[in-house]
Amino acid sequence: MFSKEMADLGKKRSTIREIFEYGNTRAKEIGRENIYDFSLGNPSIPAPSAMSEYLRELIENEKPELLHGYTSAQGAENVRISIAESLNRRFATSFNKDNIYMTVGAAAALSIVLKALTEPADEFIVFAPFFPEYRCFIESGAKAKCVVIPPDRENFQINFDEFEKAISENTKGVIVNSPNNPSGAVYSEETIKKLASLLEKKSEEYNHPIFLISDEPYREIVYDGLNIPFVTKYYKNTIVCYSYSKALSLAGERIGYVLVPNEVTNSKDIYAAVCGAGRILGYVCAPAMFQRVVAAFSDSTSDISIYEKNRNLLYDNLSKYGYKMVKPQGAFYIFLKALEEDEHAFCEKAKKYELLLVPGTDFGCPGYVRLSYCVSTSMIEKSLPLFEKLAKDYE
Amino acid sequence: MFSKEMADLGKKRSTIREIFEYGNTRAKEIGRENIYDFSLGNPSIPAPSAMSEYLRELIENEKPELLHGYTSAQGAENVRISIAESLNRRFATSFNKDNIYMTVGAAAALSIVLKALTEPADEFIVFAPFFPEYRCFIESGAKAKCVVIPPDRENFQINFDEFEKAISENTKGVIVNSPNNPSGAVYSEETIKKLASLLEKKSEEYNHPIFLISDEPYREIVYDGLNIPFVTKYYKNTIVCYSYSKALSLAGERIGYVLVPNEVTNSKDIYAAVCGAGRILGYVCAPAMFQRVVAAFSDSTSDISIYEKNRNLLYDNLSKYGYKMVKPQGAFYIFLKALEEDEHAFCEKAKKYELLLVPGTDFGCPGYVRLSYCVSTSMIEKSLPLFEKLAKDYE
Repeated sequence: MFSKEMADLGKKRSTIREIFEYGNTRAKEIGRENIYDFSLGNPSIPAPSAMSEYLRELIENEKPELLHGYTSAQGAENVRISIAESLNRRFATSFNKDNIYMTVGAAAALSIVLKALTEPADEFIVFAPFFPEYRCFIESGAKAKCVVIPPDRENFQINFDEFEKAISENTKGVIVNSPNNPSGAVYSEETIKKLASLLEKKSEEYNHPIFLISDEPYREIVYDGLNIPFVTKYYKNTIVCYSYSKALSLAGERIGYVLVPNEVTNSKDIYAAVCGAGRILGYVCAPAMFQRVVAAFSDSTSDISIYEKNRNLLYDNLSKYGYKMVKPQGAFYIFLKALEEDEHAFCEKAKKYELLLVPGTDFGCPGYVRLSYCVSTSMIEKSLPLFEKLAKDYE
Repeated sequence: MFSKEMADLGKKRSTIREIFEYGNTRAKEIGRENIYDFSLGNPSIPAPSAMSEYLRELIENEKPELLHGYTSAQGAENVRISIAESLNRRFATSFNKDNIYMTVGAAAALSIVLKALTEPADEFIVFAPFFPEYRCFIESGAKAKCVVIPPDRENFQINFDEFEKAISENTKGVIVNSPNNPSGAVYSEETIKKLASLLEKKSEEYNHPIFLISDEPYREIVYDGLNIPFVTKYYKNTIVCYSYSKALSLAGERIGYVLVPNEVTNSKDIYAAVCGAGRILGYVCAPAMFQRVVAAFSDSTSDISIYEKNRNLLYDNLSKYGYKMVKPQGAFYIFLKALEEDEHAFCEKAKKYELLLVPGTDFGCPGYVRLSYCVSTSMIEKSLPLFEKLAKDYE
């Protein structure tokens, strides 16, 4: 009568969403100011203030039927030119408009790329800890197999021994996400070089390209003045999925892109397959007005220094209280080792102090919990004594 | 190496897009003012003028991180309440927020509903002439069979004899689109009653519901003071796919909804399957700011009277010149009988007068051509002598 697979996916709320809803209920009982909700990755910093002015000007000066009308399916030409130029300026690349396909955010970009690449019996590899929706996009969207590599708990880089064993002749692609949700880890240049070299070797061995799908919604959110290696420069068969959700605080506006560099094997065909997948999934075009907005702000970010301040506050204090974690270098998450083996039990104990954390199991990494620190600094400050009490309960 | 099916879909530009690109090239040669491009369905009337003011207020008064942040996957609660109330007010229905799932336009809505409903071996029926993308969504998106019912050339209602023969135990659903693209026909209450009664009979015969998927982007664009029958009131297993693209001239902003009434068999499961399908296709949520916009303007439309004026101008004059067509009662298309059997040859002859028309074959109706009259009235006025000359060539 209907697709049970889809109904199950629709009913099974994500754990993150469950916790968020619990927080709302609890807030009604004891007041929002007494809840410390670290569950959601919804940017807490406003978009750059110049954006409001830009939006006002667009609305005042452009004809509404042009401003709100269809763009071409791959995105407005001048928008794609601006974005390619911004990338070239910042990363010393040489992309052009025909490498870029505008999407309704990074989830759409991933869903489209997986659909564009997948043939029967294909497998995609993901590295734990990983964003849980990857599994949905791979298994239920593209109807491919999702192969999970266990985490490198030392520093959340790549567990290369396990990775090499998992690559097979069916491996169509590998998804990386650096800076990482949920660990906050940023892949070092060494990691990326090793990854590229292994993929080159295996592509040759199996006589077909293994694509590297680089999911980069947190690309601009890095700390300590870190320079992030731009992945396409290290491995030719890289396809980038980008979103402006996090860096420009536009998560609800659904705007991002797919980047298919010329160096990719059969680049033109793959770009065409991306267009075809976007078409059959019903995407038509990315939101028109926000295409112009992100083109105008493609060199900008929201004030990331606030996230860095939050990270320092949490990392320094939680370390002092005895919590163990890899220091995050990007994104806005800390991935904490739970103070007991069953991290679900740990999360329940945290709830007694109104601290809402996300269990690591959904990310493929049991025994850990995720904290999103895209929240107000004052909430973090108020929560610290509670984290201290929670730690003491385990002494 | 990649999905050839997707690459082919991406490379095979739609005929409409081909003609549009031809028009752009020709405009460069002889000037835009000398081209009469009737190919595209991009609204030519601006959004209601109050919308600019509303957008300005939103941008000035709302916190950017709230305005542009994620909404829940099914859409912001107050938005869904406003839309349900607007429907109830205008169509004497009794929907609530839990019947509505906000989408990235009607194409997304259709793609999601088809994915939510489809099980192996399912078939969906469409009535020629039909929007060509239906076939992509059904065959390549949902992996179901697309069954086409030949047109009722008398008045572009439903060819019930052929329809009844085509329904089988594998028929999962039927897509209707009234007001229709490309014919401009509006299904009469009689047609809808007959359709409902046949679907009820066949649902009983095969002992499973046959869903009526009502694709309604042109619902508000009707002429001659016509009252359009609201389909859910005639057949309980109706799922509505709506878009604000046409009635509010927001085609590029990608905003619409799926409506699953309580009366639908397994309504809650199907709503969950819609949520699941939206999730795995990567939709996350509909664009946040335009959710608010359409909620505020859910009782409004752009100034449709301009389209009606255009229709009258074309219909009256083309009839006078000897062209045959069913008088459109809605949407912004006229579906003209070509003046020779091969409508492609007819379109080529029209091109000599710089008249750009779309052949009917792609819509499943050879021998006809589509004119979009969402263009300026003055362009239509200037084109009339050329249509007259074209007709004379066939005398």
